[in-house]
Amino acid sequence: MSEPTGLIAKSGIELLTFGTPNGFKVSVLLEELKEAYGKDFTWQSINIMKNTQKEPWFTAISPNGRIPAIVDHDRNDFAVFEGLSILTYLTRHYDPEHRFSFPVDSDDYSVAEQWMAWQHGGLGPMQGQANLFFLFAKEKIPYGAQRYVGESERLYGVLDKRLEGRDFVAGPGKGKYSIADMSMIGWVSIATLSGIDLKQFPNVQAWYERIVARPATARGLAIPSASSFRNEALAKTRAEDPEAKKKADENQKFLDDAKKQYGYKYSSP
Amino acid sequence: MSEPTGLIAKSGIELLTFGTPNGFKVSVLLEELKEAYGKDFTWQSINIMKNTQKEPWFTAISPNGRIPAIVDHDRNDFAVFEGLSILTYLTRHYDPEHRFSFPVDSDDYSVAEQWMAWQHGGLGPMQGQANLFFLFAKEKIPYGAQRYVGESERLYGVLDKRLEGRDFVAGPGKGKYSIADMSMIGWVSIATLSGIDLKQFPNVQAWYERIVARPATARGLAIPSASSFRNEALAKTRAEDPEAKKKADENQKFLDDAKKQYGYKYSSP
Repeated sequence: MSEPTGLIAKSGIELLTFGTPNGFKVSVLLEELKEAYGKDFTWQSINIMKNTQKEPWFTAISPNGRIPAIVDHDRNDFAVFEGLSILTYLTRHYDPEHRFSFPVDSDDYSVAEQWMAWQHGGLGPMQGQANLFFLFAKEKIPYGAQRYVGESERLYGVLDKRLEGRDFVAGPGKGKYSIADMSMIGWVSIATLSGIDLKQFPNVQAWYERIVARPATARGLAIPSASSFRNEALAKTRAEDPEAKKKADENQKFLDDAKKQYGYKYSSP
Repeated sequence: MSEPTGLIAKSGIELLTFGTPNGFKVSVLLEELKEAYGKDFTWQSINIMKNTQKEPWFTAISPNGRIPAIVDHDRNDFAVFEGLSILTYLTRHYDPEHRFSFPVDSDDYSVAEQWMAWQHGGLGPMQGQANLFFLFAKEKIPYGAQRYVGESERLYGVLDKRLEGRDFVAGPGKGKYSIADMSMIGWVSIATLSGIDLKQFPNVQAWYERIVARPATARGLAIPSASSFRNEALAKTRAEDPEAKKKADENQKFLDDAKKQYGYKYSSP
């Protein structure tokens, strides 16, 4: 398949994405907005392994050279980069009934924004580094693996505590499904890959299952395609493929040894 | 000096902070709001080396156990954590003339928010990891040092390009000094410490000098106290103290060697 070389749509929202946790947060919201309001969108898959996100046409839209980014063809081709600001932009303009967001002058708005910022500056970057040191770096560096998987676990603990007695991260009472949850769902959907055991965080696990059961959200998590890194897919692969299981066990041993070597101990917040 | 054990103010904004880049972004805004509008605030220094930020009274305000956090005594003691959401909260409620922010329904608002998110998820976390691997980790790990200093340099390059022909990050024309700039100033103020040479990024350097020349911003950068890590302070120390110079040269050699070892090469965006 050839890579995108520019924008393709003339109206609606055009999403430039890839099958990563940060990409999913936007495709999930767009699928929910489509179901709720009929809001139209188009997407293109940007292969970050081919560095398409570094092409001049792309960095003109997203100056940091990263997915996701959107272009709003209905508002003078206005471009937005960075997940957090894409989610708030889309709900500001296309969620008039606040089904997935909160009125900007309400305290709930701030609470949702606080947790989105917590994801954007913590959960996302730290779980990203965990994946690097635990899985993808050519060099095995125990210090990095235990540090970032450990910090990710601490963050899952903070989220687990937040979800105690709540259905969703933000909103009055037990909460309302909103962009705060959507900002996190992609990362939690690959917790297993990152060496994080969701069974350790029962409130997060229940919340995860609650969210992915939504048809529109499930569709959003399959744009551009269903990820083989997803918790459920990975569990299946490891159950069916002894080689995959063996590799996972080796990785886990590396992580366990790294944690021991540096005296890492999880403590709930 | 004994550590804080709870809130101390009854009215205005109470800031819980420490002399770090993320703390400064809020003290800078509060000083600017005080100068512009007379808005009152109180601050307490939270010694993160003593883990005061993990005390129950603190995590009740800031569930992630991190500074900065604010409590708004004039709005039912509403608490806000995470730098990005503190900056937007404060301007939403206390910058009615939009001297440091943009109307929420404007495209400038989104542009400022995009760059704040870029700082919150990129510049901040990555320069933070650079400091760890380059300076503070007990173990010297060349892979980590070149990776994170290198990624920070890439991000400074993105900011440098953004500032081409502009005075400030967001706003029409050459831009307006806003919370987008404030979100970044603390990190840029310790670029030298992080192994980043501002001379390589002339637009960033000019922007930095433009901003720290503002009296209110300068006061904000000295809360709780002027940092010995600040670019100017560090240059002075290294010029006056041969031991400090020698240590800095050793660190620089470690970094240069690490970059060579991994074939790192800066390329502008």
